[in-house]
Amino acid sequence: MISSDEIDRRIGKPVGWTAANFAILKRGVASAAETSSIMAAAAARAALDAARWEAKDLDVIVGACGVMEQAIPGTAPLIQRRLGLGASGIPAFDINATCLSFLVALDIVSLGFAAGHWRKAMIASADIASAALNFEDPEASVIFGDGAAAIAVETVESNSDILAYRLETYGDGAEYCQLEAGGTRLRPHENLEHFLAHSRFQMDGPGVFMAAAKRFPRFASRLLKSCDLTPGDIDLVVPHQASAAALEHLRRVFPIGDDRIVDIFADHGNQIATSLPSALHAAITSGRLKRGDIAFLVGTAAGISLGGAIIRY
Amino acid sequence: MISSDEIDRRIGKPVGWTAANFAILKRGVASAAETSSIMAAAAARAALDAARWEAKDLDVIVGACGVMEQAIPGTAPLIQRRLGLGASGIPAFDINATCLSFLVALDIVSLGFAAGHWRKAMIASADIASAALNFEDPEASVIFGDGAAAIAVETVESNSDILAYRLETYGDGAEYCQLEAGGTRLRPHENLEHFLAHSRFQMDGPGVFMAAAKRFPRFASRLLKSCDLTPGDIDLVVPHQASAAALEHLRRVFPIGDDRIVDIFADHGNQIATSLPSALHAAITSGRLKRGDIAFLVGTAAGISLGGAIIRY
Repeated sequence: MISSDEIDRRIGKPVGWTAANFAILKRGVASAAETSSIMAAAAARAALDAARWEAKDLDVIVGACGVMEQAIPGTAPLIQRRLGLGASGIPAFDINATCLSFLVALDIVSLGFAAGHWRKAMIASADIASAALNFEDPEASVIFGDGAAAIAVETVESNSDILAYRLETYGDGAEYCQLEAGGTRLRPHENLEHFLAHSRFQMDGPGVFMAAAKRFPRFASRLLKSCDLTPGDIDLVVPHQASAAALEHLRRVFPIGDDRIVDIFADHGNQIATSLPSALHAAITSGRLKRGDIAFLVGTAAGISLGGAIIRY
Repeated sequence: MISSDEIDRRIGKPVGWTAANFAILKRGVASAAETSSIMAAAAARAALDAARWEAKDLDVIVGACGVMEQAIPGTAPLIQRRLGLGASGIPAFDINATCLSFLVALDIVSLGFAAGHWRKAMIASADIASAALNFEDPEASVIFGDGAAAIAVETVESNSDILAYRLETYGDGAEYCQLEAGGTRLRPHENLEHFLAHSRFQMDGPGVFMAAAKRFPRFASRLLKSCDLTPGDIDLVVPHQASAAALEHLRRVFPIGDDRIVDIFADHGNQIATSLPSALHAAITSGRLKRGDIAFLVGTAAGISLGGAIIRY
């Protein structure tokens, strides 16, 4: 963990500046020895323990990171190996929808359950935002934290279910949040200067906020309508922790009471794909989300996308 | 396209060396102006035309590349925008299982069809292998080609179906095929020399071949058994085009006749995730795969993974 005061000293701001402007107190920072798969595997082990499962019981491992550990292979096989399952054959693949990777993975796992593909799944997210932040742009850097979270999901005879799911993507907003390096387009061996200049995360905060906000009411309304629920039926909103401003906006447009919106932003920041499962983990372990409760998992992602699921826990 | 003779001149080998040693004559090479999403969108447009669909009819766009165009956002939103759908809201996300991304995406699309999520899907693969090849290591470079392929899939009342699907991952083989840069682990701003030294694709060809070959018979047997078919029931094998040696091995261990194994390697090389949909496209457009035929889509991927699907086309 690194405090916002320490960030202030690092970026040459008066102590208290980051906390005052972005409502964040601290965030995780991966050590030099940690990688995405190490962190995701540790989270997955904790989830296995909580579920009282053995690693070998898993039918599938889905990696749901915002950014991969490396380009090839995917992060899921690396997580699988770190769980001691490298000779198991247990299928492992990755889903990418940036900050909504976990939500899309949860939907896909539930589809696989319905089809009888799998009974026990591990969805593991890990993000090391600190690998590519530009602290000369505070808004695109000081709010991001490193972290990992994993959720063990099982199909059993119960009332637990995904009641509705919706993903909307608006590629016109692709430039609002981007990390241009890391793929086949920018190549360090061809133009190193250009590569380095575009190898840190860039964000047009107001742009993405406005693009998402203007679409949110209709998005939420369609999602709720698809399972015949109203905002009053939601026991707990578990949002992606995009920023304090985004969470504040959510409280205004989805006014079901502050005590029913999970907000872990001040202590974790925006952990990219890890934010949503982290918030879900916090809701479960704190007892705020109880069996039978209706939860609204919701968030936005680079792309840009809006995503949501109504679940009965 | 670039010929193997031209590759020979470039790497200082006698003309004919690459063709003689790797049984490849030519491969696609993306121009400087092409990106993964440009190539994938062009393939998707051709697939829309062949299906007589409008782009706006799509219910989902799944990116199934081996390596992304850039780290953030995913490739699928970029493809969506290039199809003129950037304001549509049509969901777009990516699946990554390296060379098996298309196969995993096809399975996931079929799960979404079964659940009523979508009716019309576009799965688009594009890979620009040439972005990160090390020509000082011929085996890990001269066989790779750039390309894109897209498949339009619809759920309709018909006999067409995925009869069986299987993915096995063995993370112990993660080092056999890797591109260490591109993610959160290697950071150009922290150790540029190390980053550059690991920013090209590396492959232990014999290692991955042996690791996959020793598991293939049991893998294929289980897959066939799960849908009560035998090798004799397969009309056409549509394999990932890993290498001439891998295709030759497949002919030996799955002896259903050379005319029933699609081999486009000599003219395209290994196009990473694009190989499998390219081979499927070739099989369909050439008339080798006809409606009602039973096809065995099969391949290996970095990870390492073995994947297969038995489909009735």
